[in-house]
Amino acid sequence: MPAPIDFYFDFSSPYGYFAAQKIDAIAEKHDRAVNWRPILLGAIFKITGSRPLVNMPLKSDYAARDMSRLARLLGVPFTLPAGFPIATQAAARAFYWTQQRDPRLARELALALYHAYFADGRDISDPETVVDIAAGLGIDRTQLAAALGDSAVKERLKNEVDAAIARKVFGSPFIIIDDEPFWGVDHLDQVERWLATGGW
Amino acid sequence: MPAPIDFYFDFSSPYGYFAAQKIDAIAEKHDRAVNWRPILLGAIFKITGSRPLVNMPLKSDYAARDMSRLARLLGVPFTLPAGFPIATQAAARAFYWTQQRDPRLARELALALYHAYFADGRDISDPETVVDIAAGLGIDRTQLAAALGDSAVKERLKNEVDAAIARKVFGSPFIIIDDEPFWGVDHLDQVERWLATGGW
Repeated sequence: MPAPIDFYFDFSSPYGYFAAQKIDAIAEKHDRAVNWRPILLGAIFKITGSRPLVNMPLKSDYAARDMSRLARLLGVPFTLPAGFPIATQAAARAFYWTQQRDPRLARELALALYHAYFADGRDISDPETVVDIAAGLGIDRTQLAAALGDSAVKERLKNEVDAAIARKVFGSPFIIIDDEPFWGVDHLDQVERWLATGGW
Repeated sequence: MPAPIDFYFDFSSPYGYFAAQKIDAIAEKHDRAVNWRPILLGAIFKITGSRPLVNMPLKSDYAARDMSRLARLLGVPFTLPAGFPIATQAAARAFYWTQQRDPRLARELALALYHAYFADGRDISDPETVVDIAAGLGIDRTQLAAALGDSAVKERLKNEVDAAIARKVFGSPFIIIDDEPFWGVDHLDQVERWLATGGW
């Protein structure tokens, strides 16, 4: 079986949320596993000098419209949250801590966190909210709450973000197939074609 | 017949070049005309605070790779020019001046200018090069050379750019169908679907 593909995303990224609904099915069709890798766009934007689309002159209205339009096209529930974007350290740390124990459960948690934020408008920057959502999937509340403040877990996330930057990941979603990078949910058709053909 | 769709592009934009190969055929399938509208991204980037992708940290390598990859996928000849991006006032003025006389010829000129820059590596920021390319299509060399310095032609381009900004056009290609905006060559599938369905 060929190497897994890398799926980088930020929990505050609508386009990451949309891609998260699709990426496993696309990869599975071509016998690939997906390595889910939450990152922190805030740290990356400090390097690129980017800002969230919704904070940009001229672009903000378009961005909100494009997100809603794409959500309708994909049939994915979506409301741009009142607080947007948000810090996603707690969500990402919860993911990596869970992944070390149960990768499948970590993916379920990622989808649940995304849904809570973009469909239900819950503030997943709040560690207590993250723990609540995880507990709903049977994850131990006390252990996770402790893990979110644990220095090893913080370090793990920091290392993931640094490694992503070293690979020149600069947005969300960002997918790497055998060192070939694809940025944006708009590139999922190219991702699928690359997996099917081995490149062009 | 429904209203034409607006196709905004900058002559220095690779993604505008790619979209220019496709947009007429897409529109024609749905009985729409296309209003080609060259603009100046430089003026727009001053407002948005954007920079050309190829000048951005982390993004520059990706941008070059993405452009070449998309060109291969579309079967369009493409080499990122040594001088990139460039000023496109001369090209855009030549377009609008020609369009007032012969809209079909203006479109031919646009495609010829794009090809000269992105396939043949010619510097279309140079008014003499623009005039040479236009002359190859039978456009009067002396008249066009005079028009490129004419204040009414300059004003026409300035007004087009101002009007584009007023409509919140912030990138290239940028397509507007009945007030519905679509940014990027990646959105051509949505443009086609919107034309076919009237929206979703």
